[in-house]
Amino acid sequence: MQLQMTVAELQSFLARDFAQVAGDFAVERADAAGLCLRLRVQDKHLRPGGTVSGPAMFALADVAMYLALLARIGPVALAVTTNCSMDFMRKPASGRDILAEARILKLGRSLAVGDVMLTSEGQAEPVARAGMTYAIPPLR
Amino acid sequence: MQLQMTVAELQSFLARDFAQVAGDFAVERADAAGLCLRLRVQDKHLRPGGTVSGPAMFALADVAMYLALLARIGPVALAVTTNCSMDFMRKPASGRDILAEARILKLGRSLAVGDVMLTSEGQAEPVARAGMTYAIPPLR
Amino acid sequence: MQLQMTVAELQSFLARDFAQVAGDFAVERADAAGLCLRLRVQDKHLRPGGTVSGPAMFALADVAMYLALLARIGPVALAVTTNCSMDFMRKPASGRDILAEARILKLGRSLAVGDVMLTSEGQAEPVARAGMTYAIPPLR
Amino acid sequence: MQLQMTVAELQSFLARDFAQVAGDFAVERADAAGLCLRLRVQDKHLRPGGTVSGPAMFALADVAMYLALLARIGPVALAVTTNCSMDFMRKPASGRDILAEARILKLGRSLAVGDVMLTSEGQAEPVARAGMTYAIPPLR
Repeated sequence: MQLQMTVAELQSFLARDFAQVAGDFAVERADAAGLCLRLRVQDKHLRPGGTVSGPAMFALADVAMYLALLARIGPVALAVTTNCSMDFMRKPASGRDILAEARILKLGRSLAVGDVMLTSEGQAEPVARAGMTYAIPPLR
Repeated sequence: MQLQMTVAELQSFLARDFAQVAGDFAVERADAAGLCLRLRVQDKHLRPGGTVSGPAMFALADVAMYLALLARIGPVALAVTTNCSMDFMRKPASGRDILAEARILKLGRSLAVGDVMLTSEGQAEPVARAGMTYAIPPLR
Repeated sequence: MQLQMTVAELQSFLARDFAQVAGDFAVERADAAGLCLRLRVQDKHLRPGGTVSGPAMFALADVAMYLALLARIGPVALAVTTNCSMDFMRKPASGRDILAEARILKLGRSLAVGDVMLTSEGQAEPVARAGMTYAIPPLR
Repeated sequence: MQLQMTVAELQSFLARDFAQVAGDFAVERADAAGLCLRLRVQDKHLRPGGTVSGPAMFALADVAMYLALLARIGPVALAVTTNCSMDFMRKPASGRDILAEARILKLGRSLAVGDVMLTSEGQAEPVARAGMTYAIPPLR
């Protein structure tokens, strides 16, 4: 399984096509096993009490899975999320970034399925887990 | 089934406890059948191409379900989302707000389950659907 | 929205193509709003304590959604379930059949999305709810 | 993390409390990492065409997660499934058993969350994946 995009290419893609949120994310790793994406936690991601908000975690999982998919098929496709099932398990650790580890479990002609595990940096136990499906347009 | 909070009280709660995002949302209705919440779509909610982003739709569904729950149990509880399963079905109509219709299907001692249907204002067909579970702390 | 199959045709399809389980199910209604399917609860569907088992409820939701889809597109397609997200909310009432009300929320070229509400016959409150996605083969 | 039940004890529990289906399943392994459960595929599990049915795969995931939970908390609790989100990714290989690898991601006082990966024996790529939540009664 050869990757079609490097970490630097994925980061550039993000900066160009998702300029509004690109500064929130850093691609830590992309390889055959999957992709690791960092959410640089800032005030705008927090709920009262200092917890990272659900939508911020959803966005992290969604972008991680999207980039893991592009790493495999290249930047040509305009894939869209069709399903996300997410379990929120623990309060993220205060003052730490969140890391998302995404893997592609199936890459079909029209559907890609993967899962994403979210942890607070330096912690072993996951804060959330997501199963995600993307529809891949027929143009490829 | 008597509600514990009025539309005005729900809106005030949002302004006080979720100040960062309160301006994005307007409670349209709250009654025994459920709650309708409007996302006032702005540039920050859009993806390239003008589509409302997945995280913005997730946030809308999450807040709608949360307020529907508080309308039933009052503003005392600190409920947290434990699961969300969301199907994204259609591209939202351009230039329109999105309305979320949330209903509580089960209100137990420790878990509340509901679903949320999202439509572009003025359209019949849903853009997304979510099933959501909230854990209710034992203090009530 | 005209249906492609009547209740009698759906029941015949079930008897022919799902002979092993056809006797468990009865199509109660099929119309533009959706389809209602009855699970004739028997001993084999029960867990210790007399509760209808999770797999029996999953099967009911799956078949209800499948038949609701065939009613719309006809018996030609070999659709397969790609995702099911199910909330189990209440213990089914003892000694009663379970009714599943399925509706199609999206019927696209390659994906169909719907939801299914399960109730014990004669009860208002749902025992379970499912969101389901079917992949439709390109042959249609 | 010490386990409260051995493989033999889990198998005995299944034989006693789930007599109807116990012969379908064999506990292959139980340790700190999780539990592996085998579905002994028989004719009754098949759909037309020889595919293992969705309900049979749901049952396998559900029992695997349940036993993984009991291995951790002992046979005292009467846990019930509250949510299952399942992705069906590939047709199971014909004539092979299916193996489910379950892990507990969170074991809280009232909720346990885990995921289950299903593969046809001898194949690397998964046929299905499930995220599951169990409610644990307060008696513990």
